[in-house]
Amino acid sequence: MVNLRKFAIIVAGGSGSRMNVSIPKQFLLLQGKPLLMYSIEAFNQACPGISLLVVLPSGQFSTWKHLCDQHAFVLPHQLVEGGETRFHSVKNALACIGDEGLVAIHDGARPLISESLIRTVFLAAGQLGNCIPVIPLNESLRILSGETNRLVNRYNYRIVQTPQVFQAAIIKKAYSQEYRESFTDDAAVVETLGETIHLADGDPVNLKITHPYDLAAAEILINDQ
Amino acid sequence: MVNLRKFAIIVAGGSGSRMNVSIPKQFLLLQGKPLLMYSIEAFNQACPGISLLVVLPSGQFSTWKHLCDQHAFVLPHQLVEGGETRFHSVKNALACIGDEGLVAIHDGARPLISESLIRTVFLAAGQLGNCIPVIPLNESLRILSGETNRLVNRYNYRIVQTPQVFQAAIIKKAYSQEYRESFTDDAAVVETLGETIHLADGDPVNLKITHPYDLAAAEILINDQ
Repeated sequence: MVNLRKFAIIVAGGSGSRMNVSIPKQFLLLQGKPLLMYSIEAFNQACPGISLLVVLPSGQFSTWKHLCDQHAFVLPHQLVEGGETRFHSVKNALACIGDEGLVAIHDGARPLISESLIRTVFLAAGQLGNCIPVIPLNESLRILSGETNRLVNRYNYRIVQTPQVFQAAIIKKAYSQEYRESFTDDAAVVETLGETIHLADGDPVNLKITHPYDLAAAEILINDQ
Repeated sequence: MVNLRKFAIIVAGGSGSRMNVSIPKQFLLLQGKPLLMYSIEAFNQACPGISLLVVLPSGQFSTWKHLCDQHAFVLPHQLVEGGETRFHSVKNALACIGDEGLVAIHDGARPLISESLIRTVFLAAGQLGNCIPVIPLNESLRILSGETNRLVNRYNYRIVQTPQVFQAAIIKKAYSQEYRESFTDDAAVVETLGETIHLADGDPVNLKITHPYDLAAAEILINDQ
């Protein structure tokens, strides 16, 4: 297989409203270092030479640059202005990328992404056109249906993680569509083109920092890595 | 409404295999106290006079009694021998209960259950016949279908927690059915009788200790309560 050029778009537009903190969650400290730096480092380690695009609200650019100075964080990356929704943020970043290569899109709020999972999804996407990591559910799952609800077989379902990797031409085409509310992740946008989405085993440790206790759990997990 | 007699079955049959520890997870220490004691205390506080049944593998009875002595844990509860599966464990406990009153069934691995959530589900079950707590999903959800898979609308789904509360006569009738693999929780068993299951808003803090980092998160969360 040709060694395709690799890109990673790290999306960090979150306001942190569920964290009950005034600081944007991508800047919260994990072992003394801003969350967002972990993903950038992981992609850089997993794929040397990768082109990194970091999407932030433009109002946060100066804070981020200050944090980079403060933490002597020198890994090269391009800052991209966030949009109204996650969809618009990703679209802005894709506008900076051509039609060649593979593009990973990753939540900046998942600092514990492993280098091996990054390599796994890139490798599979290179062969199959796309690949996303998923994990099984540990708890029962019910579906709402009008006024009632019923159990579904949780073993038939998977929780979706990031990074989600796609051929550049496909993901760019997908994001040329009109925005829909059902676009809860990038695979959803690509699937609307009629593409089959390929799954890889994700990692329960690759958690999304949503609540304050996720950050606490991350503090412990990072020591185990 | 008549003040119905209340029971709580706390199921603690877990081997802790995903915790990578040799000690059963219900005996792991959270702030120096065995996990299992938290649920017993919460039910006792939320519903004074409640009858508590704790299901443990019979091989763990002596360890548990020793822990109770060691921690001066004197809240009254009846020990019930666990069965081959969670279904059989709950069935054994139900055999100790009559047809009157309300029965809560709770995972012993959810130590952070709040008194207010216990009261909420009991109150609703008293009015409606049953009630279970559920929470929304924070991440995208896909359904597997043969060799492929597709996105589903996660807003139509709910993750199921415990305690699940039922009228005693109904839950006993439900558990007189033959065991099926699809019985992943108590609501599933009752639903098979044709009953509608009633939902209440659960609590993301009411997490199930499955992995070592859940215990770490619980250590933080318990300080916030």
